[in-house]
Amino acid sequence: MKIVIAPDSFKGSLSSEEAANAIRNGILRAILEAETVLIPMADGGEGTVDSLVQATRGSKVFVPVQGPLQDEVMASYGVLGDGVTCVIEMASASGLVLIPEDQRNPLLATTYGTGQLIRHALDHGYRSFILALGGSATNDGGSGMLQALGLRLLDAEGRDIGAGGQALSRLTQLDATHWDERAIRESQFIIASDVTNPFVGPQGASHVFGPQKGATPEMVEALDAALTNWADVMAAHTGVAVHHLPGAGAAGGLGGAFQAFFPASMKRGIDVVIEMTQLIEHLQDANLVITGEGQTDAQTASGKAPMGIAQAASKLGVPVIVISGSIGQGIEKLYDYGVTSIHSIVNGPMTLQEAMNRTPELLAQRAEQVMRTFLAGRKKEL
Amino acid sequence: MKIVIAPDSFKGSLSSEEAANAIRNGILRAILEAETVLIPMADGGEGTVDSLVQATRGSKVFVPVQGPLQDEVMASYGVLGDGVTCVIEMASASGLVLIPEDQRNPLLATTYGTGQLIRHALDHGYRSFILALGGSATNDGGSGMLQALGLRLLDAEGRDIGAGGQALSRLTQLDATHWDERAIRESQFIIASDVTNPFVGPQGASHVFGPQKGATPEMVEALDAALTNWADVMAAHTGVAVHHLPGAGAAGGLGGAFQAFFPASMKRGIDVVIEMTQLIEHLQDANLVITGEGQTDAQTASGKAPMGIAQAASKLGVPVIVISGSIGQGIEKLYDYGVTSIHSIVNGPMTLQEAMNRTPELLAQRAEQVMRTFLAGRKKEL
Repeated sequence: MKIVIAPDSFKGSLSSEEAANAIRNGILRAILEAETVLIPMADGGEGTVDSLVQATRGSKVFVPVQGPLQDEVMASYGVLGDGVTCVIEMASASGLVLIPEDQRNPLLATTYGTGQLIRHALDHGYRSFILALGGSATNDGGSGMLQALGLRLLDAEGRDIGAGGQALSRLTQLDATHWDERAIRESQFIIASDVTNPFVGPQGASHVFGPQKGATPEMVEALDAALTNWADVMAAHTGVAVHHLPGAGAAGGLGGAFQAFFPASMKRGIDVVIEMTQLIEHLQDANLVITGEGQTDAQTASGKAPMGIAQAASKLGVPVIVISGSIGQGIEKLYDYGVTSIHSIVNGPMTLQEAMNRTPELLAQRAEQVMRTFLAGRKKEL
Repeated sequence: MKIVIAPDSFKGSLSSEEAANAIRNGILRAILEAETVLIPMADGGEGTVDSLVQATRGSKVFVPVQGPLQDEVMASYGVLGDGVTCVIEMASASGLVLIPEDQRNPLLATTYGTGQLIRHALDHGYRSFILALGGSATNDGGSGMLQALGLRLLDAEGRDIGAGGQALSRLTQLDATHWDERAIRESQFIIASDVTNPFVGPQGASHVFGPQKGATPEMVEALDAALTNWADVMAAHTGVAVHHLPGAGAAGGLGGAFQAFFPASMKRGIDVVIEMTQLIEHLQDANLVITGEGQTDAQTASGKAPMGIAQAASKLGVPVIVISGSIGQGIEKLYDYGVTSIHSIVNGPMTLQEAMNRTPELLAQRAEQVMRTFLAGRKKEL
């Protein structure tokens, strides 16, 4: 019996690889002769690099870069097992988690560090990129990323406008003298993002995502105006008007910069992960796939790992069992995507802290019990 | 597909019948065309009368009797659907739950009320009895029960010794003039008890169960001596020496009184319930049995409902799934008895109070998910 074990991370307690190991431990207690295939998953958000590097036996490169507020941070990107494809989480260099909550400032935050990661990879000869856009601290329309790659953003007097979304209001012209057009044009960029919001307007990056990055209502208006100016300038330069393009609003408008300046295709995060981990190939002859995540609820149906896995597995007739830290409202939606059943690791009343401390043990126990139940179903004829 | 639903009660939140209904609700969400058979269970302890009355469509009779401390309590017994068999929980008349904790007194507590229930049933023509012995407040060796049925216990001066275990130290003779020998001899008593302790000695009723009924070490010694005297007097009267008989120490020695004075057979509580509910007949063509209880742990393997059901079902090759309020240590023991898998209703970190408040909903959800898992096992060939 072949069982594919493909959990996302259990945020705060287990990485996706640790979760996969715990699930395997439980499975083997239920059926020692099971063939298990471990595919640590991610959904294109946090953990995507680790998941893909592990799944493909790749490596991770650490690079000191400018953080979102221009302080130095140690960021990283992954090189997949093919030795060719780089995976970059923009949040590694430009993420909200890098800034203490009381210092969040979307007026100033920059994607410069993300550009430095790309430049580092380009300098090392890489031309195939997966960019994961979740978790940004920025609202700079990707301008910082482009600056790091050599594009100069200038005001009416020809002076550099500086970093951050607010500065874009002063932008009037671009200087592409040092822009590495050749390296960029040779490259392929896959943008992993679940966000379909446009660049500007009421559904745009500033209005929808600005507040969670620390923007007041006044800042939101200023940022939306600045990004509109930026989109105008980009359109004049590249011929691509990103103002209302779906997905251009991802990661504070970083999505839009990719759409305007790069040979980029946008894909749903989970689909990129499924493709790169070759999940579908592994599922072809599987009897069961077990996935999981920290919390399963209605949100899971909007592109989280269990939903993507279920979509893939159900086409092949493979049952999909989800084991999560906790189960919230609205899980019925997941049946439509092919989820078979959903279980919590929690085995009695306990606090969140206890559940998180005991996750490996509880996850293994639940996997064992679920497996025993699944196996029992095979034994007696209808 | 036929599914037998046979949970014990979830103490503090659901009766076994309510639990069975909740499980059925979940099952039908997973497989609408399932044939469900609901058999509310018990293990011979609290809830046995309700379970058997419900399972057999019987009735319940309420009788005011003397409580363990001689105050009046409203007790009850069940008449099963056969119209012939009475089920009596001794705890209904003589239970620890009837006394506030600070008033527990095993020196004085009497089984008189239990005897009144038997007398009431005998007076109404019943001759077939199931006596469930769990939960007693008493340590009177069943002397009160016999007094209620007409036996007089006298001291050296021929005076009535009164009630309770302590008084037995003064006992020298019995007067059976008013003892309803005929009715007793015509009757059949099945004693449902999981206790195998002897009447007296270090493993006897006083030493092992006295402390939880409020006995100090000094009281334990006094009670053990009093019960030894009582066993001597019984042996002289009936020819049956119960001192070291297994099970004679059940319910403060009530078990011994039955062994000496009645045509009684002792059975494990769960086996009596399984027999009376005709569980095995219902399991013959079942595809699955689902049981459950408040807490499943190593204790479950010592005669609780899921263990007894598993023993019965595994002989017939029927998988047994346990759904419990919480799962403790040592559940692996249950596999040896035929339990397939064990699941908690709790679906995320929560307090005991929340879990108890939400038991019907959580139990239905878990049953649904477990059923979906079981069904998925049937679909794909190995």
